[in-house]
Amino acid sequence: MDDAYQISPQKEVLYGEESRKALANFALNYKETNLKLIYAIVKVKKAAAKTYVKLGTGKAGVYESVVRACDRILAGEYKEQFVVDALQGGAGTSANMNVNEVVTALAGKIWREEKKEELLIHPLDDVNRGQSTNDVYPTALRIASIELLRELSDGCAKLQQALQLKEREYEGIKKLGRTELMDAIPVTLGEEFGAYAQAVARDRWRLYKVEERLRQVNLGGTAVGNSSNADRKYRFMVIEELREITGMGLAAAEYPMDITQNNDVFVEVSGLLKALAVNLMKISGDLRLMNSGPHGGIGEIHLKPLQAGSTIMPGKVNPVIPEMVTQVAMKVMANDYAITMAASRGEFELNAFLPLIADSLLESLMLLERAVELFRSKCIEQLEPDRERCEALLEGSYAFATSYTRVLGYDRVSEIIEQYKGNPGAVKKALEEEINS
Amino acid sequence: MDDAYQISPQKEVLYGEESRKALANFALNYKETNLKLIYAIVKVKKAAAKTYVKLGTGKAGVYESVVRACDRILAGEYKEQFVVDALQGGAGTSANMNVNEVVTALAGKIWREEKKEELLIHPLDDVNRGQSTNDVYPTALRIASIELLRELSDGCAKLQQALQLKEREYEGIKKLGRTELMDAIPVTLGEEFGAYAQAVARDRWRLYKVEERLRQVNLGGTAVGNSSNADRKYRFMVIEELREITGMGLAAAEYPMDITQNNDVFVEVSGLLKALAVNLMKISGDLRLMNSGPHGGIGEIHLKPLQAGSTIMPGKVNPVIPEMVTQVAMKVMANDYAITMAASRGEFELNAFLPLIADSLLESLMLLERAVELFRSKCIEQLEPDRERCEALLEGSYAFATSYTRVLGYDRVSEIIEQYKGNPGAVKKALEEEINS
Amino acid sequence: MDDAYQISPQKEVLYGEESRKALANFALNYKETNLKLIYAIVKVKKAAAKTYVKLGTGKAGVYESVVRACDRILAGEYKEQFVVDALQGGAGTSANMNVNEVVTALAGKIWREEKKEELLIHPLDDVNRGQSTNDVYPTALRIASIELLRELSDGCAKLQQALQLKEREYEGIKKLGRTELMDAIPVTLGEEFGAYAQAVARDRWRLYKVEERLRQVNLGGTAVGNSSNADRKYRFMVIEELREITGMGLAAAEYPMDITQNNDVFVEVSGLLKALAVNLMKISGDLRLMNSGPHGGIGEIHLKPLQAGSTIMPGKVNPVIPEMVTQVAMKVMANDYAITMAASRGEFELNAFLPLIADSLLESLMLLERAVELFRSKCIEQLEPDRERCEALLEGSYAFATSYTRVLGYDRVSEIIEQYKGNPGAVKKALEEEINS
Amino acid sequence: MDDAYQISPQKEVLYGEESRKALANFALNYKETNLKLIYAIVKVKKAAAKTYVKLGTGKAGVYESVVRACDRILAGEYKEQFVVDALQGGAGTSANMNVNEVVTALAGKIWREEKKEELLIHPLDDVNRGQSTNDVYPTALRIASIELLRELSDGCAKLQQALQLKEREYEGIKKLGRTELMDAIPVTLGEEFGAYAQAVARDRWRLYKVEERLRQVNLGGTAVGNSSNADRKYRFMVIEELREITGMGLAAAEYPMDITQNNDVFVEVSGLLKALAVNLMKISGDLRLMNSGPHGGIGEIHLKPLQAGSTIMPGKVNPVIPEMVTQVAMKVMANDYAITMAASRGEFELNAFLPLIADSLLESLMLLERAVELFRSKCIEQLEPDRERCEALLEGSYAFATSYTRVLGYDRVSEIIEQYKGNPGAVKKALEEEINS
Repeated sequence: MDDAYQISPQKEVLYGEESRKALANFALNYKETNLKLIYAIVKVKKAAAKTYVKLGTGKAGVYESVVRACDRILAGEYKEQFVVDALQGGAGTSANMNVNEVVTALAGKIWREEKKEELLIHPLDDVNRGQSTNDVYPTALRIASIELLRELSDGCAKLQQALQLKEREYEGIKKLGRTELMDAIPVTLGEEFGAYAQAVARDRWRLYKVEERLRQVNLGGTAVGNSSNADRKYRFMVIEELREITGMGLAAAEYPMDITQNNDVFVEVSGLLKALAVNLMKISGDLRLMNSGPHGGIGEIHLKPLQAGSTIMPGKVNPVIPEMVTQVAMKVMANDYAITMAASRGEFELNAFLPLIADSLLESLMLLERAVELFRSKCIEQLEPDRERCEALLEGSYAFATSYTRVLGYDRVSEIIEQYKGNPGAVKKALEEEINS
Repeated sequence: MDDAYQISPQKEVLYGEESRKALANFALNYKETNLKLIYAIVKVKKAAAKTYVKLGTGKAGVYESVVRACDRILAGEYKEQFVVDALQGGAGTSANMNVNEVVTALAGKIWREEKKEELLIHPLDDVNRGQSTNDVYPTALRIASIELLRELSDGCAKLQQALQLKEREYEGIKKLGRTELMDAIPVTLGEEFGAYAQAVARDRWRLYKVEERLRQVNLGGTAVGNSSNADRKYRFMVIEELREITGMGLAAAEYPMDITQNNDVFVEVSGLLKALAVNLMKISGDLRLMNSGPHGGIGEIHLKPLQAGSTIMPGKVNPVIPEMVTQVAMKVMANDYAITMAASRGEFELNAFLPLIADSLLESLMLLERAVELFRSKCIEQLEPDRERCEALLEGSYAFATSYTRVLGYDRVSEIIEQYKGNPGAVKKALEEEINS
Repeated sequence: MDDAYQISPQKEVLYGEESRKALANFALNYKETNLKLIYAIVKVKKAAAKTYVKLGTGKAGVYESVVRACDRILAGEYKEQFVVDALQGGAGTSANMNVNEVVTALAGKIWREEKKEELLIHPLDDVNRGQSTNDVYPTALRIASIELLRELSDGCAKLQQALQLKEREYEGIKKLGRTELMDAIPVTLGEEFGAYAQAVARDRWRLYKVEERLRQVNLGGTAVGNSSNADRKYRFMVIEELREITGMGLAAAEYPMDITQNNDVFVEVSGLLKALAVNLMKISGDLRLMNSGPHGGIGEIHLKPLQAGSTIMPGKVNPVIPEMVTQVAMKVMANDYAITMAASRGEFELNAFLPLIADSLLESLMLLERAVELFRSKCIEQLEPDRERCEALLEGSYAFATSYTRVLGYDRVSEIIEQYKGNPGAVKKALEEEINS
Repeated sequence: MDDAYQISPQKEVLYGEESRKALANFALNYKETNLKLIYAIVKVKKAAAKTYVKLGTGKAGVYESVVRACDRILAGEYKEQFVVDALQGGAGTSANMNVNEVVTALAGKIWREEKKEELLIHPLDDVNRGQSTNDVYPTALRIASIELLRELSDGCAKLQQALQLKEREYEGIKKLGRTELMDAIPVTLGEEFGAYAQAVARDRWRLYKVEERLRQVNLGGTAVGNSSNADRKYRFMVIEELREITGMGLAAAEYPMDITQNNDVFVEVSGLLKALAVNLMKISGDLRLMNSGPHGGIGEIHLKPLQAGSTIMPGKVNPVIPEMVTQVAMKVMANDYAITMAASRGEFELNAFLPLIADSLLESLMLLERAVELFRSKCIEQLEPDRERCEALLEGSYAFATSYTRVLGYDRVSEIIEQYKGNPGAVKKALEEEINS
């Protein structure tokens, strides 16, 4: 296990000694560091290198080469080189070193191939110059999070639209409203989809607004946030470069020591993802109930059959998409637990458990993005109401009775219902007579 | 707030300086330390005092007086003297001091009243002799937990019996079985209650078995578990006394340092309470679904109406007991979270957060005991099946179809269902024809 | 248990039949419904009654009497009348009925005492007129939450100021910065308190901003949000009255059905409380580490001794306030779990588990308010730095070494450290020589 | 995405239509169904096929072929064919169908290659004969869990031995005992490792004992546990075959309907994994504290340097293994949350969310197995005590003072400590003088 290089024999290994050690130390077989995070680290490296090119720092050609190496990695060619486990110790040092080593090797290789000569590049003194894992990694995590938040927010917008379409489409379908699963008073199916749309609209707004909290980055703060070893000019310029590379409105944190050691912002973001999860679970649960049956349940809607529902019961169709969405929602809640625990355990100038926060948060974002998309396209947009069933259930119930209390009073209406129990028609007749008498 | 004595002016204040400080320091207005825990601490004090009486330790009369003071407290007369907040810092020192001070004052008072003379008793050198909060408090928590576990286990036994009664009573009621809320194949209502009974039986067994893990106590280990300052003879005898006082098969831990610093046993017990909570939530959910309606839901059973269900909708009855049980179950799960977090944060020879563990664990035990009792007496034992509805839902479904696959194969049965979709009678006829052809 | 009236014999019982039933049904012995919530419900009743007075609704004198009864309750005279358990089933119906019944009895009593005649008032047709638990209870929960959020936000502001005072006071105290508990590079004690202040400032901002989300109330939506049984004029006016009574910028929800069934907003608020809890836990943990010792730990600060630290070890002082704060933080996290679970289980037009959400959210808010206050006044403001210790630990470490890498490179500095391992003075000398050579 | 076949172009695709649909429906890009679970399903298929061979069921050659196909899969040749996402809807139907389809295709292929003729095999009527996902999947989950529990239990045994070795090795190293991070009384380093060993021993015992609860399987119960469509003889024989194939003491559940719908057993197992996680986190935390420094911390032990600790601070070494173990522990706790939520949401005869339970439980088991192994081999076995430091911290403290209270009393010792505060030598001298006077 320990010395297993996880790259197929055909591929050249570009990473170096520290990555190898990390492979052996964190041999959890869990999963590799999230590629979105790796690429965001590469973007930080590129921003730094571009800055040093402009500042004329270092040996000629080094930082130009580094920029080109970063571009090739970002083009997707070297995915397999990023091998360190997501749950690594060391607060992300191994992920940063993995990138430093691969960029170094690749930059040297590019130079060698073109110039036919060696170029000495040092993974720390050059590629990591003026940086520390402790400013690179949290900055990269913010970039990756913003990227995914935007995708998720877009997905929520589309889901909201799909729900609003249903709201309009079903505005004429009267049905039984239910509270605590018991027959209550009449509503329309359209109103129900409207309420779902409102909840998702709120999620979308929250996810959109929270981005601003993530835009403050501690890049330039280095190890503990007080910019030890980072050149003043570099610090100002690198954020500018990073803004350009990412297309995000990133800003240097006013108090980088805070951002370096405190992770409440990720707890906040995860808390909002959890609120979205709660809404998805509520809607999924309703759809499962409304779709239940086809005979022995509520049966007010029909979800589209997507696959055989059973290996033993022919004809059975299950609400597989809401079930999947529910599980994703639960997973997001569980990830929030992990993020909270990890964030609460920061010590002094750093939080050693940031890799768990990163892995859990990015996983939640990616899972939700996919779940929201599949929920919309394979469930919401495909479902059909059962108008007859909606009407029948409403007609057979006492849902009409409440409106009589305004005139007859709660107690009198209760008495009449009790008197003609089990016979809604008779109740209605009695109420009408009473009101007209 | 700080100096608020929470005792009514009429009552004499028996606690002393350290309790007063704790009142001010932990002025959370949350709730007082669980009385079950306080009484268990008093039992430990009594066991120690009885031991010292036998060993002839200390000034004449002191320990006899302490024993009598403990007995009066345990008789329930001095509840209002135990004032320190449940979420106190200091790993329980304040709760222990509160007991030490009240016992001291009361023992002195008893002596004074009878002998008309003063008896000098020291809350630490006498009442706490050979003890430390770090062995007294965890021992008391084990005693209180065992007491409550037994009550809960008895409650589960009664719930199991009530469910088994329903199992037998309803064994003839055929109904629709459902998987993923969709019509599946026929079962009986009795079988469903039988399955509930099995789950509860497993809970009962688990709760019964786990008691043995709690019986090992670190009393005699004092501050860090190596029995510093505790007399050898005292250590052996005090457990014996405690066994007699509590009627529990307590034993001195083989390795008291372990028990003093590690709290995984409470995590284990809470984990089992969580398993019970899961089962209660499952059963409650089923009952709510089966009771849903009365018209627009499943309606296979009728829960007993216990109170008006709505302030606006006359005649509405809600499944309030399963709703309460579900909330208790969620609370138990949340308490498990608190217990886990606290237990994971032990440091070196102690865990400073034991008061949170104690408060959460005892709350879960007490809530579950009440919930199980109310669930049985006000819900399970009172519910009534709706035989006609059970039959009607079964008859109208395709639940019969699965059994035909053994002869006709899954694909052929699927085809026939598809062909006569929406018409179970026609499907049945076609299947019968095919099978007889 | 069942029929236990929890009011002392001297007091007149004002609540009625439905409260009695709820007492028996939810006999959990857990705790009564949060009084802040009860009072907020009373404010809603008052707003409705004032509206009906203006509209001239109902029999003469009824609503004037109701307003006066509400005022007397809000003055704090009838606390003991609100007896229903916090974890009640029925989505809050019992809490609403408890208020309806007490207001009814009290309004009648006031009239009787003054006019010497009876006034017939109906708890539902009058006091609850145009209302449903499903709009009253969530509206009241928002009011109570906003009230507590403001107090907590103020408390955070004061804590932030106290931390910033320390930031300035200690700006000259150089000390060892630590990452992953290992010696890193120099920082100042002031900077550390500055980072804490930043985190708390962020919490304060979040708590301030989230209020706006709570201001949308569904009052007037009645049972399912479509305003069944609520007069149009009443609906507009009642919010106006409620705004005046509460002094909060409340607004009628645009889509009351959404607010009636979806509880993601409470999940959002709780998520922010959890972020605050994370920060409090981080700071508490740091203070405990910095205070550890006095000899065998880090010892960079001294927390004020507040009470005896041990019942067996004389002279021992424990960091009891940070320990209490940590437990409160864990409790808030656990409550978030309960709120999330409950909110995810809404069904159709309502969430039956809102009482658990209410109890947990208000408890978290109240606990945090107290904890933040005690943390500030008894810990932060009282702590003292140990300047000598800060200096000694810094001087003895290699924290100076990082700055040499800019000239000598990472590898060369590493070599020199390795060469003179265990002797920081020699390392420094060698680095200086190398740099000057 | 939807139609992406995740198999490289060179490989033949053996799975069929239902797997393809599942690929599209559950396109979460999360991860594939755990291979341990897939193989356990294959073992169930093999057991069923062997039974049918013995019973002479079906067309000649079919079940012999199926057995051979299962063997080839279990040999590890067809991993890439099992493609359906772990968080699938449908309660595991897709994982079961994926296996049914691959086994079918492979069995046909084997026959074809050898006999040069076609053999018609049906994935449901043949490979799934007498089975349902609802008995196959939970049975397979139990088998996979037992397998992993045994590995983990072995790992705990080895960890316990390693800790006990340290216990003996360090029994002579006196050091400061600490409670609440404050200096308490003397202990030995050996005793501390002894306490860790005890906790791990308890975990091992729990994991060993809980296996018995998993051995009851519902295979033969089919869709809802009442054995619909499963031949009586088959039901008895298949368990026997499965016992032989797995080497586990599996038994047919007495009440299969219970096992089919209730998942509290997985909650119980996960709860025990959480207890192990708590212990690992406690030990990891202690090691990190003891290793803190090297100068500005406690420094009583030295963890082995495994990799560069920083990209900016030369010579820095971090406790990366305890940090990794802590993150794994937090992940296990988070998984427990997911398992609990999912298990609490069973409905009627089934729990639709079993795939989330399976994924989370198996992940926890696998992560813990790796973490325990790496913790032992790379951290515990490699650490070294710093004897001088242990002695120095003990000598400089007041840890000796407690023992004097037995003679001098708590108050007098407190006074003397207060009098000579900051000078342990003087305190000791004064105490000795007092005691001898």
